[in-house]
Amino acid sequence: MSQLIEAYNDQRAALIDADRALRVDRIRGPYHTVLEIKADQIVRSIRAEEARTVWGVEHDDVPSPFPGMEFITGKKIVVKTKLFQLLSKMPKGALLHTHVDLSVSPRATLDIALHHPAIHIQVPPALTTSNLASTVPRVMPQASDFSACTVALTDPNYPGDSWVPLRFARESFSPNMGGPEGFDKWLTESMSISSIAAYDTHNNNIKIWDKFAESAKLVCVSGMTHYAPMWPEYIKQFFKEIVEDGISYAECRFDFTPKHFMDAEGQDTATHLQWIKVFRDVAKEYKEELQAQGRGDEFAGAKMIYTVIRRVTPGELEWYLQDCIAMKQEFPDVIAGFDLVGDENANRPLIYYLSPLLTFRAECDSLSLDIPFLFHAGETCGDGSHADVNLYDALLLGSKRIAHGFSIVKHPKLMEMCRERNVALEVCPISNEILRLTASMPMHPLPILLNNGVPVTLNSDDGTLFNNVGITYDMYQVIAASDVTGLLTLAELARDSITHSMMSEDEKKMAREAWEKRWILFLENVVSLEAQTGVDAPLRN
Amino acid sequence: MSQLIEAYNDQRAALIDADRALRVDRIRGPYHTVLEIKADQIVRSIRAEEARTVWGVEHDDVPSPFPGMEFITGKKIVVKTKLFQLLSKMPKGALLHTHVDLSVSPRATLDIALHHPAIHIQVPPALTTSNLASTVPRVMPQASDFSACTVALTDPNYPGDSWVPLRFARESFSPNMGGPEGFDKWLTESMSISSIAAYDTHNNNIKIWDKFAESAKLVCVSGMTHYAPMWPEYIKQFFKEIVEDGISYAECRFDFTPKHFMDAEGQDTATHLQWIKVFRDVAKEYKEELQAQGRGDEFAGAKMIYTVIRRVTPGELEWYLQDCIAMKQEFPDVIAGFDLVGDENANRPLIYYLSPLLTFRAECDSLSLDIPFLFHAGETCGDGSHADVNLYDALLLGSKRIAHGFSIVKHPKLMEMCRERNVALEVCPISNEILRLTASMPMHPLPILLNNGVPVTLNSDDGTLFNNVGITYDMYQVIAASDVTGLLTLAELARDSITHSMMSEDEKKMAREAWEKRWILFLENVVSLEAQTGVDAPLRN
Repeated sequence: MSQLIEAYNDQRAALIDADRALRVDRIRGPYHTVLEIKADQIVRSIRAEEARTVWGVEHDDVPSPFPGMEFITGKKIVVKTKLFQLLSKMPKGALLHTHVDLSVSPRATLDIALHHPAIHIQVPPALTTSNLASTVPRVMPQASDFSACTVALTDPNYPGDSWVPLRFARESFSPNMGGPEGFDKWLTESMSISSIAAYDTHNNNIKIWDKFAESAKLVCVSGMTHYAPMWPEYIKQFFKEIVEDGISYAECRFDFTPKHFMDAEGQDTATHLQWIKVFRDVAKEYKEELQAQGRGDEFAGAKMIYTVIRRVTPGELEWYLQDCIAMKQEFPDVIAGFDLVGDENANRPLIYYLSPLLTFRAECDSLSLDIPFLFHAGETCGDGSHADVNLYDALLLGSKRIAHGFSIVKHPKLMEMCRERNVALEVCPISNEILRLTASMPMHPLPILLNNGVPVTLNSDDGTLFNNVGITYDMYQVIAASDVTGLLTLAELARDSITHSMMSEDEKKMAREAWEKRWILFLENVVSLEAQTGVDAPLRN
Repeated sequence: MSQLIEAYNDQRAALIDADRALRVDRIRGPYHTVLEIKADQIVRSIRAEEARTVWGVEHDDVPSPFPGMEFITGKKIVVKTKLFQLLSKMPKGALLHTHVDLSVSPRATLDIALHHPAIHIQVPPALTTSNLASTVPRVMPQASDFSACTVALTDPNYPGDSWVPLRFARESFSPNMGGPEGFDKWLTESMSISSIAAYDTHNNNIKIWDKFAESAKLVCVSGMTHYAPMWPEYIKQFFKEIVEDGISYAECRFDFTPKHFMDAEGQDTATHLQWIKVFRDVAKEYKEELQAQGRGDEFAGAKMIYTVIRRVTPGELEWYLQDCIAMKQEFPDVIAGFDLVGDENANRPLIYYLSPLLTFRAECDSLSLDIPFLFHAGETCGDGSHADVNLYDALLLGSKRIAHGFSIVKHPKLMEMCRERNVALEVCPISNEILRLTASMPMHPLPILLNNGVPVTLNSDDGTLFNNVGITYDMYQVIAASDVTGLLTLAELARDSITHSMMSEDEKKMAREAWEKRWILFLENVVSLEAQTGVDAPLRN
């Protein structure tokens, strides 16, 4: 019998190996260093311990917690864990999927707005303790000669739908509702999707987009991030926050559907060209600022992905594609690619735009312009729906990466194509969960992608709306919900985020070298932490 | 440009074909008849219409409905659809995954119990309008000389935890709580998992098992289906209900962990042998009864799968494996296989039982006994957890089918093995959803299995607990949530349920011929329905 059992166990080990053979962490396993393996073991042991001591016990304000649970509810536990604190120090590589005008923390977005006297706020009727939680305000810059209302939003005499200066609204906020701090809490909470919306009132992938649109409108469309005087401060704050999280490069999607943004006078005159120039200049300045502080390794720069909402007509799209070409010609190092955005279930599929997209591709070729498609596709639970079928078109149109690609796990041939053509997926775990594509991280299809050898990067999507600025939160959810994925998986995804970026080969080389240097320092810290606290390191699973 | 678009569309059609090439409905596509294709188109058109007219509108009592939504909430809409009514008439083939002692409709279970004076009921304190919904009673047979309490459960003077005859409890139930009908409602609802438990208070895959255990205990462990005088009536009712649903054969898992069941005197003396003999005899009688009515095609018979809860020790398991061999020798045509059951996340993994299982396999070989393993494995959201890793062992131990296999979609090598070795998965969509492995049917991994060519059958698991007796409900959820899967997919799964059963080749041949005859009649009805109502038939997706 013992021989039989030994033979069985050999067979078993071989089968598990064969099953995981396409995983990036297995393929690169032979190149992992002793230091990397040691740190990985420490992280596995912290995870196992916290699964028991943190997630395995009841918490007063979080009923039935489990690793990888609903993020909005579980975040208050996540941030207290040793695993989260450790991951927050890890160098993350590139952030390849972020809608930049929805990506600064709510608090910082508000702080910037408060410094601009032109920013005003309105609510339908006066705020009361009973309507506060359900009221989402509008915020917008007004021209300098605008005569504002100066009645507190919480004053019963406030005339509904009247614009009040933002700072005044804050200072005059009724002490019964928390005064200025109460105002801040209310407004920042309005910018993010709440646990009640995601897990109760709008708990499905169709309905939750209403809440997404509501918060998105508050944050950017209403003006806070589409207002020229705020834009340089906003984008600088974005760079600061990602660098703080360990991200050293970003490709920022920006919605250029509005043909103009608001100028200092509150008029729609700011051009796409002005907008991109500011982005480029701020990125350059910030990079130089860090270099001057000896922190050059922390930031390799940033590019923009030109996006349009997939609600325009094919004829309208032609204008945007021409505009994108013009912007690329003006800013060849800034424009990283082109994409169509917005809820795929509700809006137009890629195939609807086939003719203008093929024309664009031919024109770029004839101009020797490299504007890769970086399409959103398959951000859906559909099976054969338009949104799901977008994946065929994204790949046939030569998309260099796929944004989300959530439903690609249904498509063996498309996963094979991604693997063979080296097309990476921009996976956004927390975004997927809050938008109800998956109920919690253990149900997320990421392990399927990894086990099929599909190139993957991790991303936050909309940091303001999901309260997950950076990549640490998403990494935490991913690693907490698995017994296979470990620190070295995350490291390979970070390495791949640089490889799959649209940086030039020279830029990539520099970014990669800087990352590897910081990675070794990080590993040394993890290992010295263990030496101090004496965590037992179990064998790898 | 038009040539370019034409070439693109050709490429696109070829890619979609390649991606779906492993699907059972594609592989057998060339053998589909004109009648089948016509009926499939009709079903697609009904589905599309009801997605708009039924699921696309608001209902008073079901907020935000969508096709494939949470079953407990959506069931009241499901049963009203034309698609459901149509599917309920389809011949289903074999039911390969049913825990038979939890599989009769709650109402019928209660009706049987009410005919047995020995059945008694107790509750902790007297029932009141405020504790009624949260009180789960205990039900159990008592010996004939038992002196029962005869105070109504709803009487404030009811002495807590006292056994009252079931029928008396019903008749004396307070009119304030609905009288006898109120009693029936309360008791039948206690047998099933409620929407509040599944979608609110116990809304995760770990916690929901408490509710599962609570209802399961009420239905069977307490005695209603483990009481010898009820067993023949119960099993007959089970056969009636599945035949009513169009199922013509069943392999019934039965938990033989209790070494004895209750006899007429309420004593634990009824043996496994007696239990199986009754099952065999009732199945035989019912088959003959149907044959006498000219309905022989409707029922090919039934077998039992011997199961033990995966909480026993390896030493204890040896007793059960010997018992299973003895039962197989006594009832070679009844015992279809062996399985270990119970929540895989909480209980012992297969590898824990390696030694006794290998010994059993060798012993069966030396006795020339065919008792295949039909293991539960991968009924989990885990990634590399014990429950997930069970899949490796199920396949290495030669399991002929896999029960659930929910997490196999993470394992490319294991899906390949199932495809090549022709190992079918017993997929239980509604069970998976209510046990919170998936939040709704659109998130269920079934399309991944189909697109990877993994053999699949559809099953209800525990019809009493999930209120989904038969296979129609599960088929409805599957077909409503997809734009690819259609009637002919369901037909191939029905054909495969016969192929993957443990019937002998002769039995299979007869069951298959009977199914094909009934299938043609069904198709003719579907098509004549269309001729009457004039549904437009769109092209297949």
